[in-house]
Amino acid sequence: MSSINKEMEALGKVRSVIRETFEYGNRRAKEIGRENVFDFSLGNPSVPVPSALDDEIARLAKSGNSVSVHGYTSAQGAEPTRAAIAENINKRFSAGITKDDIYMTCGAAASLTISLKALTNPGDEVIAFAPFFPEYRVFVNAVGAKLVVVPADTKSFQIDFDAFLKLINKKTKAVIINTPNNPTGVVMSEETIKRLCEILKDKSAEYTSPVYLITDEPYRELVYDRADELPYLMNYYDNTLVCYSFSKSLSVPGDRLGYIAVCNKMPDCRDVYAAVCGAGRALGYVCAPSLMQKAVIPLIGKTSDISVYKKNRDLLYGALTEYGYECVYPDGAFYLFVKSPEPDANAFCEKAKKYDILLVASDSFGCEGYVRIAYCVTTEMIERSLPAFKKLIESYK
Amino acid sequence: MSSINKEMEALGKVRSVIRETFEYGNRRAKEIGRENVFDFSLGNPSVPVPSALDDEIARLAKSGNSVSVHGYTSAQGAEPTRAAIAENINKRFSAGITKDDIYMTCGAAASLTISLKALTNPGDEVIAFAPFFPEYRVFVNAVGAKLVVVPADTKSFQIDFDAFLKLINKKTKAVIINTPNNPTGVVMSEETIKRLCEILKDKSAEYTSPVYLITDEPYRELVYDRADELPYLMNYYDNTLVCYSFSKSLSVPGDRLGYIAVCNKMPDCRDVYAAVCGAGRALGYVCAPSLMQKAVIPLIGKTSDISVYKKNRDLLYGALTEYGYECVYPDGAFYLFVKSPEPDANAFCEKAKKYDILLVASDSFGCEGYVRIAYCVTTEMIERSLPAFKKLIESYK
Repeated sequence: MSSINKEMEALGKVRSVIRETFEYGNRRAKEIGRENVFDFSLGNPSVPVPSALDDEIARLAKSGNSVSVHGYTSAQGAEPTRAAIAENINKRFSAGITKDDIYMTCGAAASLTISLKALTNPGDEVIAFAPFFPEYRVFVNAVGAKLVVVPADTKSFQIDFDAFLKLINKKTKAVIINTPNNPTGVVMSEETIKRLCEILKDKSAEYTSPVYLITDEPYRELVYDRADELPYLMNYYDNTLVCYSFSKSLSVPGDRLGYIAVCNKMPDCRDVYAAVCGAGRALGYVCAPSLMQKAVIPLIGKTSDISVYKKNRDLLYGALTEYGYECVYPDGAFYLFVKSPEPDANAFCEKAKKYDILLVASDSFGCEGYVRIAYCVTTEMIERSLPAFKKLIESYK
Repeated sequence: MSSINKEMEALGKVRSVIRETFEYGNRRAKEIGRENVFDFSLGNPSVPVPSALDDEIARLAKSGNSVSVHGYTSAQGAEPTRAAIAENINKRFSAGITKDDIYMTCGAAASLTISLKALTNPGDEVIAFAPFFPEYRVFVNAVGAKLVVVPADTKSFQIDFDAFLKLINKKTKAVIINTPNNPTGVVMSEETIKRLCEILKDKSAEYTSPVYLITDEPYRELVYDRADELPYLMNYYDNTLVCYSFSKSLSVPGDRLGYIAVCNKMPDCRDVYAAVCGAGRALGYVCAPSLMQKAVIPLIGKTSDISVYKKNRDLLYGALTEYGYECVYPDGAFYLFVKSPEPDANAFCEKAKKYDILLVASDSFGCEGYVRIAYCVTTEMIERSLPAFKKLIESYK
């Protein structure tokens, strides 16, 4: 007797730790009041959508041109949207790309699955650097490739190059990076990027086959200290695919809009772009949501008011460090990565729950002994939580 | 030297006949004027979106609750949307389903790819009946299964059961039907459905493993003569997954919204539903577009003004039959399937081009010798095209 796909069934049944923590928080809020639960579990944008975006959505909906507004765009995406994105990238990073190098997607997860399906054949290997977004494993497995994890560099949360050099091999089809990083908030330094790209160039030559760089950038716009210095990967390595999403920068994660930018300096760039189109088609994407594709045009290069996240970071990093927590300094995203004061981060999370602080243990990110604090919450909640954080660390002294 | 995924590259490079015909039409319109080109190539809704939907989109966008409106829904979809859909299905078809049997998707293509990924393991077979939507082959191949095609029953365009019985076997994991059908517009009769479901029951028992029925229903609401009689498949066969889309019924194909309904009478219903959730996750879908999920709630069970399509059908079917074309009578969708007056339908399409009539040959639908006429166009264009259709058939006499 044959069966349905058991791997998919298992994926659908497993409860994510993040989601379980969030639901525990909702139950607890009913018991003791929402204001007394300090839920730092979810990486959900908390600042309002720019009103210009909502204005544009309403304007398009009422434009009297509904068949076009809601109609199919080409599979690659609406031409004016792709043109606006390419222009903005070139203005900011001088990357020399065109609208024909951009493929619009249903968000970052779609950008990644489509890129992986386009680049890999079953049995190929894909390298990620711990700590990493756990869905990478799901996406890589789903296309029949194998995820190879480079252990975390827990000194600086950059890259452990010795470990990387031991793992990269002829079967490595692609390397995924994520900067600013989920779960650490760390921004990859230009020095790290240069060294990584040198290795990728050397290995591509040695293997006489490109090792592609997939750069997962949903947090690109969320950088607080050195936003101008955040390197654009295409300017360092030709075999680069940028996977972008508007979810975090415009606070629209549910509306599913992002893109893939294929560096046009890679030798087989038109073939790779065609494979991206083919993979989008094969995975059932048809086109990215049409109304949203059109509505974001005036917002390209703009963001929600991310000053709230910076304020939250400064407040939380400052206080927790002062109390004695060992925190990784985050330049971007909206996560703080904190060393567990006991070896087992899950035990620490359970203890934190007693103070009604909800955290996520780092195990599922491929790096044990830390917790992720998502500070995309109100500044007031952080302020209210500080005495509890203080008591929590004091309980270890 | 390894390479990128050549299958995806080829998929991305192949130009669809439909798209090429459409682009030829645009070029020709520049030469002789848009009003003189009779383009029947694209299956794109042409009637306006219900204004109530655009009103609701604008209202939500300006509601001041942007973080929630544009935020993630659960992976299964927003609960009020799923509840409204289940209620409507039960009211119309007494199918006894609940919100927990509904999984919201990014449209019909996503519904199909997710269902296929959930149900099949590599090497499984999936049966479709010619003529069929050509992307079925792409979706089935992409999950590693094999599409098995039952040749067309060209007498009634129902099902050739003798051929079907020769092809169904232990490796058959699912059967896809599409009623009303693209490209014929034919609605499957209740008699056909009963016989099909009897066979599926018998074979599931014989193989001691369910043969699932995937019913692809983007055209369910577009039925002109016997809308009340259109059977709901769950009421005939327990192992049914309904793949629905709002694209055609509400004229919003670009906005990518649909759902999968898993019949809760199938023995392993919670496992199948979990596999659907897992497959959506593995293919990178995260959730269906949030704003649209919320905006359609007041529109569930309503449609755009489809009376235009009925008028077009009556006009075109009546005139073409009178001129001597052999037409398959379409009860629904917005397609007319016409027998080519010469054996090679591609040659006929080339000849039609000389009269500036743009049609799609049936070959890509898995059934040679016919053309598809998409009558989701203005009634005026059909009226203007009739003399050309008359001259075209007369050239064969």
